[in-house]
Order: sequence, then C-alpha cells, then structure tokens
Amino acid sequence: MERRRDDSNDEVSVKGPVGEGSRRVDARDKVTGDAQFAADIFPSGALTAVVVRSTVTRGRVVDDNFEELREMEGVEAVLTAEDVPGENVVPVIEDDQPALAESTVRYDGEPIALIAVRGRRQADQIGDLIEVEYEEEEPVLDPQKSLQENSPEVAQPEFSEGGNLFTRLEIDKGDVDRAIEDSPVVVEGEYETGYQEHAYMEPQGVVALPAPHGGIEIRGTMQCPYYVRNAVSRVLGLSLNRIKVVQVATGGAFGGKEDVPSQLSAYAALLSHATNEPVKLIYDRREDIKVTSKRHPSTVRYVTAADRDGNLTGVKVGIYLDSGAYQTLSPAVLWRSLVHATGPYNVPNVKVVARSVATNKVPNGAFRGFGSPQVIFPYESQLELLAEEVGIDQVELRKKNILRPGDVTATNQRLEKSVGAAQTLERAEELSGWTETKREYSEWNSRHENVKKGIGVSSVMYGVGMGASAPILDKAGAYVKLESDGSLTFAVGNTEMGQGAETVLSQIAAEALGVRLEDVNMTEVDTSRVPDSGPTVASRATTMSGNAIVNAVNNLKPRIERVAKEILGCESVSIEDGQIVCEDGDESVDLDEVAGEMWLNNVDMAAEGWAEKGVKDWDPETARGDAYFVFSYATHITKVEVDTVTGKVNLTQHVAVHDSGRIINPTTAAGQVEGGAAQGIGFALSEDLAMEGGKFLDPDFTNYLVPTSMDIPDDMIVDFVEAEYPEGPYGAKGLGEVPLMASHGAVINAISDAIRARIYSYPATPEKVLKAYLDGE
Amino acid sequence: MERRRDDSNDEVSVKGPVGEGSRRVDARDKVTGDAQFAADIFPSGALTAVVVRSTVTRGRVVDDNFEELREMEGVEAVLTAEDVPGENVVPVIEDDQPALAESTVRYDGEPIALIAVRGRRQADQIGDLIEVEYEEEEPVLDPQKSLQENSPEVAQPEFSEGGNLFTRLEIDKGDVDRAIEDSPVVVEGEYETGYQEHAYMEPQGVVALPAPHGGIEIRGTMQCPYYVRNAVSRVLGLSLNRIKVVQVATGGAFGGKEDVPSQLSAYAALLSHATNEPVKLIYDRREDIKVTSKRHPSTVRYVTAADRDGNLTGVKVGIYLDSGAYQTLSPAVLWRSLVHATGPYNVPNVKVVARSVATNKVPNGAFRGFGSPQVIFPYESQLELLAEEVGIDQVELRKKNILRPGDVTATNQRLEKSVGAAQTLERAEELSGWTETKREYSEWNSRHENVKKGIGVSSVMYGVGMGASAPILDKAGAYVKLESDGSLTFAVGNTEMGQGAETVLSQIAAEALGVRLEDVNMTEVDTSRVPDSGPTVASRATTMSGNAIVNAVNNLKPRIERVAKEILGCESVSIEDGQIVCEDGDESVDLDEVAGEMWLNNVDMAAEGWAEKGVKDWDPETARGDAYFVFSYATHITKVEVDTVTGKVNLTQHVAVHDSGRIINPTTAAGQVEGGAAQGIGFALSEDLAMEGGKFLDPDFTNYLVPTSMDIPDDMIVDFVEAEYPEGPYGAKGLGEVPLMASHGAVINAISDAIRARIYSYPATPEKVLKAYLDGE
Repeated sequence: MERRRDDSNDEVSVKGPVGEGSRRVDARDKVTGDAQFAADIFPSGALTAVVVRSTVTRGRVVDDNFEELREMEGVEAVLTAEDVPGENVVPVIEDDQPALAESTVRYDGEPIALIAVRGRRQADQIGDLIEVEYEEEEPVLDPQKSLQENSPEVAQPEFSEGGNLFTRLEIDKGDVDRAIEDSPVVVEGEYETGYQEHAYMEPQGVVALPAPHGGIEIRGTMQCPYYVRNAVSRVLGLSLNRIKVVQVATGGAFGGKEDVPSQLSAYAALLSHATNEPVKLIYDRREDIKVTSKRHPSTVRYVTAADRDGNLTGVKVGIYLDSGAYQTLSPAVLWRSLVHATGPYNVPNVKVVARSVATNKVPNGAFRGFGSPQVIFPYESQLELLAEEVGIDQVELRKKNILRPGDVTATNQRLEKSVGAAQTLERAEELSGWTETKREYSEWNSRHENVKKGIGVSSVMYGVGMGASAPILDKAGAYVKLESDGSLTFAVGNTEMGQGAETVLSQIAAEALGVRLEDVNMTEVDTSRVPDSGPTVASRATTMSGNAIVNAVNNLKPRIERVAKEILGCESVSIEDGQIVCEDGDESVDLDEVAGEMWLNNVDMAAEGWAEKGVKDWDPETARGDAYFVFSYATHITKVEVDTVTGKVNLTQHVAVHDSGRIINPTTAAGQVEGGAAQGIGFALSEDLAMEGGKFLDPDFTNYLVPTSMDIPDDMIVDFVEAEYPEGPYGAKGLGEVPLMASHGAVINAISDAIRARIYSYPATPEKVLKAYLDGE
Repeated sequence: MERRRDDSNDEVSVKGPVGEGSRRVDARDKVTGDAQFAADIFPSGALTAVVVRSTVTRGRVVDDNFEELREMEGVEAVLTAEDVPGENVVPVIEDDQPALAESTVRYDGEPIALIAVRGRRQADQIGDLIEVEYEEEEPVLDPQKSLQENSPEVAQPEFSEGGNLFTRLEIDKGDVDRAIEDSPVVVEGEYETGYQEHAYMEPQGVVALPAPHGGIEIRGTMQCPYYVRNAVSRVLGLSLNRIKVVQVATGGAFGGKEDVPSQLSAYAALLSHATNEPVKLIYDRREDIKVTSKRHPSTVRYVTAADRDGNLTGVKVGIYLDSGAYQTLSPAVLWRSLVHATGPYNVPNVKVVARSVATNKVPNGAFRGFGSPQVIFPYESQLELLAEEVGIDQVELRKKNILRPGDVTATNQRLEKSVGAAQTLERAEELSGWTETKREYSEWNSRHENVKKGIGVSSVMYGVGMGASAPILDKAGAYVKLESDGSLTFAVGNTEMGQGAETVLSQIAAEALGVRLEDVNMTEVDTSRVPDSGPTVASRATTMSGNAIVNAVNNLKPRIERVAKEILGCESVSIEDGQIVCEDGDESVDLDEVAGEMWLNNVDMAAEGWAEKGVKDWDPETARGDAYFVFSYATHITKVEVDTVTGKVNLTQHVAVHDSGRIINPTTAAGQVEGGAAQGIGFALSEDLAMEGGKFLDPDFTNYLVPTSMDIPDDMIVDFVEAEYPEGPYGAKGLGEVPLMASHGAVINAISDAIRARIYSYPATPEKVLKAYLDGE
C-alpha cells in the first residue's frame, strides 16, 4: 500500500469514487495557467491600494502629509482610522487589532493609512512621497522581559490578563510534582523555536468590487471567506448579506491565509467603498513576509518523568509563545499547544502552563500544526533523553507509552473510536527497517568520523477540527443540484487552497450520489451560497464539508429513487456508477434518464445539507473533557547523514505513516504528506528570519531558506493505516496539518542520533549542528 | 386607490412588506450608473466577437475568404458550422435553427461564421474585409403565398407540418358554422398587424469567459438563463454543470431577450472555447433591430356572431403568423393566439385555426403579449362593429359577454378562482366617466370638423405562466439563508430585467420571514445557484419564484422559531417586523439576536424552496381543458382627439384597470402598467419597420418610432381590482404583459369612435387614419 515519490502516474485514474487515487480536479487549470488567482483579476478601472505602514517598532504618529497626498494627481483616496465608517477593527478572536492605527503604533509595518491610486506605476512610486513623523519609543521585544512588571505596556489592558500577558491556559491533572519527585528517571530541557514563514507560492491579494445594493464583493486568495465577510461587514458597518466574499484560486496558505486576508479585504473594501471603484491590493513578497502573521516563536520547558521501564509518570511543561503586538489567533494557537503538550502518550500526571505574550513585533497567527510543533519538538526530544537514560530503544519506549483505544489524554478524554497511533508507529518501524538500520548505522558511525548516520522517530496526535476551543465553528453547509442531464453541481463553504479539498470533496459528492468523479462540479466558494461553514483550518474540510455533502445528497436521493422506481416499476433501488438498479430484479436505468424525467415532471432537483460536530463535557475552567471530536495520528522516521566537518545534514530516507481514518484519495493524500513533511524539514533545519530591533532584516527568499526538492530525500515512503472514523464521511478524519507536525521531530532526533548530542533550538542550521557535535564530543 | 402619473413620491417607502409601494431595490444602482450591464464588463484580454451574416435573403454560400481572414493580424479565430464541437443548433422549441448556416441561408442577416478579433477597433474594421459569394435565389416573403403548393421550400421538411406550414393549431367548440348561420347579427373583418421591435434600452450583449474545469461562464443581458445554459451546453457538447450562466443588469427585454441571448451566448461561447480567452459580443442598435426576433406580423380573419341583444353566439377565426425562416418560439406564440382568440368573453361556439408560416425573413419570437395582441386588435374591433350593428353601448356589450366566475373559456376551462374581469370593466367605466364622456364627445363632434374626439375600451384576459403549452417549465426554485446578524440572503432563478421582479420578490421574502425590505438581499441570478426555474416570461416570475421563496422561508422558519421559543420560554411564536413575539405572552426577542443564537448553536440557517404549478386535464388533440392555472384581466379606456386635417392622433386620457390578484407593490405595478400601455400605444399608432425584398430598410430609431413621453397622455390613471389568487404568493397573479395587451385596442377603438370609421391594420399612422376618415365620410 505504501507509495514512493517516484511512483509512476499509471495508477492515477480520472474516475474516482472514494478510496481511488483520482487525478486532482483542479490540476488542468493550474498546470495550464488557466486558473485565475487574485493577481490575475484586472477589473476595469480598478485602483491600486497602497498601505501606509509604520516604520518604527513602537511609538506615536505625530505628523503626516496625508492632506498633501490627497491633492495629488492619481490619488483617489487617503484613509486613516477616522475615515472608517464602521468599527476600526480587524476581528479575529479578540477585537484588539485596529484596522488602522490610531496614532499609537505597536510594530514595524503596522498599517496607519490607506491610499487608492490610479495606475500601478503611480502606486509603486507613491511610497517615496509619504511622510510620517513618529515619536519613537523603546520597543518590547523579548517575551520573558515583556512579562516583567516594569515592562512598558504593549497589550491593551482591556485585552490582557495583566500586563503584557495576553492569555494563560493551564492543564493540571494528577499531581505532577509528586510524580516527578517519586520517579527514578527525570529529564529536563528548554527548547526554542523561531519564526516560520508560510512561504505560500502566491502572496496575499484581494480585489474589492462595488456590488449591487450598496454592497461589496471581495475576490481573493484566502482560507476563510466567512472570516473575511465578518471583517468587511464590521469595518464598513454593512449587514452580512450585503457582503459577498468569493475565494478565487489560492496558491497555498498553510494557516497564513486564515487571519491576514481579513485585513487585506477590510483595506480594499474601505477604499472601494470610499471611491466607489474596484480596488486591488496585492502584497509583493517582501511586504508579505514582513507584515503577515507567522508561526509563533516559542520558549518551552519540559520536565519528563518515568519509571525504570520507561513508562511515563509525569510531564510538566511551561510554554511561552511570542504573540507580537496583537492577538489575532494566539488564544487558539496557545490552546492547541496546551492540549497537545503530552503528545500521543499516556501520562498520568500532567501540568501544563501556557502563556501567550505581547511584544512589539508583527502579530503571529496560524501555521500548519497551529501551536503543536512548538511542543512536539520538546516532548519528542525529551523522549530521546528518556530512552537514553532508561537504556531502551526509542521505538520501544514509544510503544510502551503510546495511546491506544480506551486510554485517556492529558485532558482526560477517553479515546474510543479510530485510534491508530500504535499502528502508525509499528508500520513506520517496519517500513524503515528500524532495527537493522540502527545496527547498521551504529557500525558505520564506529568506523567513520566525517559522516555520521542517524535515525529518528516522532509520533504525533492531532485534534481534528476546532474542538472545544471554538465549537461554534465546527459546522458546514452544502448545496447539491442535479442537472437534467444527470450531472451534479455542488457548493460548500470550505476552500481549496492547494491541499486538494476540491478533489476530495468532489469524490465524496460522486460517491454519495453514485456517479463518476467527472460528473460532479464544485462551484466557486462564495459566502452567499451556503451558510457560514467555519474556517478551512484545523484539517477539518474533508470531515465537515464532506459530511455536509453526504447529508445534502441523502436529502436529494429519495426524490431520484422515487422517480427511478416509477420508471423501473420496482420497490427498492440503488445508485451505482451513474445507474439506478432495481435491488429486486435486473432492471436498471441511467441516472441521466431519471434526471431528465425529474426535470420533465417538475421535481425539485436541489437539496441542502448540513453538518455539525460538537464536543462533549469540556470544562474550560479545568481543561478537562473532550478537547476534540476525534484525533488523527502519525509516526515519521527519518534517516540522516551529518557531515561533521561542515554540519550539513543530508536526509537519506523519510518514512511517513498516517492514520487519518479512511483515505478518500491516496494519491493526493500522499502528496499532502510529502509536502507537509518537507515543510517540517524546513522548520527544523533551515527556515530562519533574522530580526533586529523588532524589524526583519531580510524578508525575502534569498535569505529565508525554504527547502527545495534537493533538500528532501529522494526516498520518501508514505503509507496510511486507516483506522476508520465512523462519524466522518466514509470513515475519513483530517490529514492536512499532521505531516508537518510529525516530520521535524523525526529529523531532529535523527540528527541527535547521528551526532550523539541534542539540539535545543530550531532551526538546526549547520552551525548549530556542528556546535552541538563539537560540544558533545 | 388609483394613482395618477403625477402623484408625488411622498408615499414611497423604503420599507416594504407586501402591498406597500416600496421604492425599487435596484433604483439606486440604476440611477447612479453603478449597475453593470453586459457592455460594462471588460474582462482583461477579452476578444471582440464579430458575426459574419448573410447579405442575401435566400441562397447558398459558394465561396468565402475565411482562410485569408484566419491569417490576419489580430484575428484569433474564424469559425464556421464545421467548427462547432457539439450540435450546430440554437435550441428553442424545435431544433430547426442552426447556430451557423451550413451553406444554405434563409434570411438576410443569418449568421454564417464567427470571428474573434483582438481589439475593438480592429473588430469594427473587419466587416469591410469579409468576402462571401452567394448563389442567390428568389425569396419567399408573403405567408399566404408561402403556403401555396408551388412555393419554394423555406421550412426544413423535418420541422414542418407540410410545405412551409410550421404549425397548425385548432380549437373547435360547439358548431360555429351553424351558430353563424342562425345568428341575426354577424360581423366580419380581416386585420393586419406589422412587426413590432422590442426597442429595449440596452441592446443584446454577452461575455463568455473560460471557467474552471474546462467549463464556460456566460454573463449577459437576458431573460432566461437556463435557456442560455442549455444552448451553450449543446453547442459545446459540455454537461450542464460545466456551464454557468449569470444574468447581469438587464436594460429591458419585453420578450426580445427570451430566445436571442441563447444565440449570442452560443457564439461567444464557441469563440471563447476555441481561443481559451474571454469573448465579448455586443450588438449595436442597427444589428440588434435587423437580426433579432420581433413580434410576428399577422393576418387574422374574424367572423363574430351574436343575438339581437348582443350576446355572442359564435366566433370563427383564421390566424396567420409570419414566423420568418426559423421557428424559435413560434409554436408557443401561436398557441397563445389560439387560446386567447375569444378574449375574456363567453362564446358558446368557437372555431379557431391558427397557422405559423415560414418565410425568408428574420425569425420572429416572443414579445410582451406573446401572440395575443394579434387577436385582441381584431376581436375588440369586431365587438365595436357588433355594438354598432346591435345598437348598444360598447361597455354594455362587453358587460353582457364578459367572463365571470363559473363561466367557461374557449377551451372549456371553468373559471373559478380570482376572476376580476367584470370588475376591471366596471371600474374603468367609472374612472373614465364613460357615459358622460360619450355624450360630451358626441356633442363636440357634432359641432367640430377639424378635431374629432373619441373614446374606446378594450378588455383582455391573459393566461399566467406557461400553461398547457409547456407545463414542464412552470416550476421555480429558491434558496434562502439567514445570516448571523439577522439579515437574509436569497436566490432565485427568475430575472430582473427592468420589470421590478427583484423588488417584488424581495418584498415577498421580507414578508415571508417577517422582516423589513432592507433586511433582505437577492443574489445575482446564476444557473448554478438554484435549479432550472423556467424562463422569466409569461408574467410568471412573481407567482412562481414568489411561491418558491415562501416555500423556502417556511422550510427555514421552524428552526428560527425553535431557537426563539427556547430563548423566550414560550410555546408558540410569530415573527413580525424583525421581532419574534410570544403568542401566549408579552415577551419578544429581535430576530438578529435569535439569528446570532442559531449561529452560536450550529443550527442550519439555510433552506431550499420549490414551486410548481401544473394545469389539469389539458388535451392537446382537442385543445380542451385547463389552458392555464389562472388568468389575469384588464380593461383600458382611452380618450383621443383626431386631427382630421393631418390624421394625427392625440391621446388625452388613458385609464388602465387591472386584476392581477393581490398587488405586491402598487408603485412598481403602476409603473409597469404605464410602460406597457405606452408600448401598446406605439404598437397601435407609430411603430413600423419598412422592409423590401426581405430586408429592413431603416433599422434604427430615427425611422422606427417608439412613443416618447410626449406621445402618451399626461392624464394616465392606473388602478387595481385585486381578485386575490389563493395559490399565488399572498394572492398575487401575473401582471407584466397585460398592460400592453389592453392598451392598443382601446386606442384603436377610440380613434374609430372619433372618426366613425374602422382601421384594419396596425400601425394606425396619420396617413391610415386620414384615409379611413376620408373613406368613411
């Protein structure tokens, strides 16, 4: 069942019920260039938006030349905070972030004004003409210092839990201090991770267009059209039904298009509303890297305790996430760090204290993994320390502790359905040839100095969907419409952003109706088509929109069957491969004929569908109960060679085994795993953003090193153990974020295995690897 | 209740439940110029489409320079019949009309090739470079001659009932020949009407855009998006779910955008599909008048018999409609002529034979009234002859014969619900001061020679919807979605084309939910949003889409009420003015609060709705049974002054009284009546297209005289008698077509009354009026 990167494409089929490796339905348009991205939209007469941004990290605006700019040829509008007709806010979770700063600026690049310019060339030139004078203040840059009592105020008091502490969350299960005291084996460590930039291929961009009835239409690259709609509604003071948000082709997102498009859309909408013209706002790469949210840098302390056999007895964790100047998604990211802090392991005594902290830096937000990579790196590193301390194989140690059906998590959630963690571990062990490889490497390393070989493992669990942090968002709508020629149109509210949702949802629609993949067609995602279906985040699109589609088709099917039964004259029918077949005879009729008959007889051929997925018994006070409706699991194993002269790490094999329940499309799922693994490899090894005084020094791809195809192993093995989830569509759970989560820990553990020394901060650049190696010798 | 043209606007409210004269919801966008019409769309990189048309009336293409054109700079494609990837057809009712002629051409202006040109200026110039050589043949232009045995073939044999007879329909009730023989009073006449051009403000135009998954999107001015979708699907050979048709702001239609947009859309789609570029096709006014379908010219013979008291005993009718070269909507138009041939009158013995005939002229299609004006002019003229013969007042004669509840029509349909014909007649008589005016005019005419005054009346009935001619099209879908702020989004498949449908449907949505008009918002009409909702013709939008909306809201309401009951803690609630009120207490809660609560609790806030309206017991063989599910009625009375020196007619008052059931919006309904009356006035008096050898001589507005505001009476009185139709939304029936139908007969009768001589052909130009007056003296 495993597939290797070099698998030929022969097995890829254009037909595709659930479980078949159908070709992506959006492949043709994206390969040919026909797909229209935000930058490809050129509305006639569109103005170009320019965002005037703070050039200081902390301070106050004391003067500007906006009045002069307003008089300039080609300048159609200059808007500041006081020109916002609705509320001056970019709503995400808290309302702490103003759309435009009201004199106080809290980070380098904070928006203070908007300019609409006629002509893109003029827009490029206007930057040089903007003059803003600031009263600069000393910025607060270090989260630990930020929490000190004498720290200057960054967080606004009404949005803080005291000083610059945005949020503090806690899990306290059992008695961890006693467990640590009583345990014979205790390991400790402090870990740091840096910024990670999403590096989506397509930068942020939207177009705002005047719409009928005084409304606004937004077309842009985004994950969460309903967030965008809400943001535009609030900033313009218009009701939600006047705002239409359409997601256009989206070239990657990875969480980076969860919160930020609300900001761009609010800006474009404000300018479009003020000028009554279309307005286009596209960030170039430097602006995009500099001012959009990234993965939270973190400092995390772990104390891990176990008995002499390696059974975990207690884990004590302190987490600090650097939020930057505003919260955006920090409370939710922090919550995921909290809940995932003990990983897929049984830990009877747990204490986790997680804090998100305000600093004068760009606000951080969502990034694939969403707060979990910051704890996975530590907890998986700790297990390695523990294995060494106990003197037990790393995989064996994990097998002892891994969560199995019936076990409980750190929040006391009992895992019952679809718990494939152990199988991922066992399968990865088998596919990597773990034991032989360890023996082989050990022998190699004893005989070689310049190249050391290592193997590392990492297992993860991931709560699918919003869970108890935002159960109000775990819903999704769908709309299906059978055409008179038997083809099917369907609409959902979750987005295709490169991850393959459109293909998977099309397969689910085809499977639900019993037709071929080529017979279904998904409409553009448009907030006016289906109800708020929550954000497309948290690996929830397949489960939530998939369930909604199945529900809609199930609402439609009885009408199809009724007409088919009339035609066939039988009591009971089923639909397969576009045919309706008598269950009590040999007769059958093509769906297109039935559809034609329905049309002729004025039968309603559309249906609406809905899915919602609650969690039960969650107590936010004690952080006890069901945190998520289900979890996905994975184990990755990496093999590396480390050049001990240069510190360069070369990955020779990466094995990725996932339990995401039933896999709707093995081909695209494997692609998602490969991409996510690569992104985790970059996080662990090379991705680094230099900053000085709260300013990024080199926000570009020359200096920010995303892994290329040369940096990931040719030998990548992806496999799935499908612990079916009965409440998901055809047994599916979520997949999207998990590959990134599982890969980096395996990589860092493999390096440690090779150099016999641990690395405590990401990225593990050659310099750090070399230092650790030399320090450890 | 009547409103005069000069009523002040004070009573117009922006709020608007059903029955209130709300301001049009699309008024602001149309007045400010914000509304986007097809010509306002400038897709980036769009090519301009040029249609190469036959310059001969009948013949064969023997040579062309298309190969040379293909090589020209700026020419991106030249397509002929053989380049059509699907079927070479523009489907309407029959499939007789090729998208592009396959060598044989049948009318002047018939499309034979399509060119996609880069640059509009180049497109304007290319006409001069096209060279096509024809073998010309003698055209068949006269319908009567066309039916002769020796006539050359115009109709394709597979689409004809023999020779050039497209369709023959018949009603034969009782024994009309005996009735005529036995009746003491018999009047006869032969009547002719000419072309009527729709003269919509906005010419035909569409844009075709490459869409995802190899599909095509059409945006254009149109009445019937589902017709367009079908046409594009067939010509491209693509399934229906790959074609998305969006109606943009539409500047008038009057039936002229029922069939023709299918043609333009097929052309733009063919070129877009061939070039993979957006393609824009906009007709200029001359092309639009010259090649688009018009009202069928007619020759109609009537024999009308009555007893000595003026009670009708028999009517015998022969109808010839000139279809032009292809059928388009002729069979349906002819059917309406047939069914409406006896008007709103009791006639025990009826024989109608109706024929549509092929000629080498532009194909004729739908026009407000749809085949009925061609019989109304004769039957109302006949009643005048009869009144004179019997010696009875014209209104009295109509009162004797008019259909009342319980009466049966020419097709033996028993009228039970909502039969307001007599009330319209009585109310119009009253509002016009009929009796006094007659006396006064009689006295005036006896004393004046140069100006003669007259008063005329006309009553009509109109079958709402498609009726038994196409019951498969009397359906409509709707989709409603409550937003979390209490605002409502809704979608339907019927179109706003200037008639006010969007306002009326918005009022129905607001009324159904119990909110203010400003709280609802209709989305663009898009075939991918709701199921095929039939065409927007036959005055059916209010009834059909209105019922679908009410159904959708009724499907949603229980969920709103459930949540409201939980909030209020009461057993039974109702929604009014955006509030949900306990029926068993004083408690109430705002809808927006309930909507917010629904959102928080993951309640599905969308619902789908459906309406269908069958007719019963129709036998197409005998033309017996229910022809329509309901009829609307009207009586108009016109007062004229005729200058007996110049023949010029001056209208001094026009009274229009309608029964369209409950009037959803009296203000917009009155506007529709005024516009329709004016269009009927133009039909009767001035609209004339000169033709020679099958070619229009002056297809422009300099020569085609549409009435201006100076040509319609300042004193226009509109009133409604609301015979509520219990199966329509809030009691509504259709209105749109009826005003035109009723006005022209009243005008022509008033002229005859003034000059004491009848006019037997439309338009009654000053020359004809003068001739009739002089002949009559």
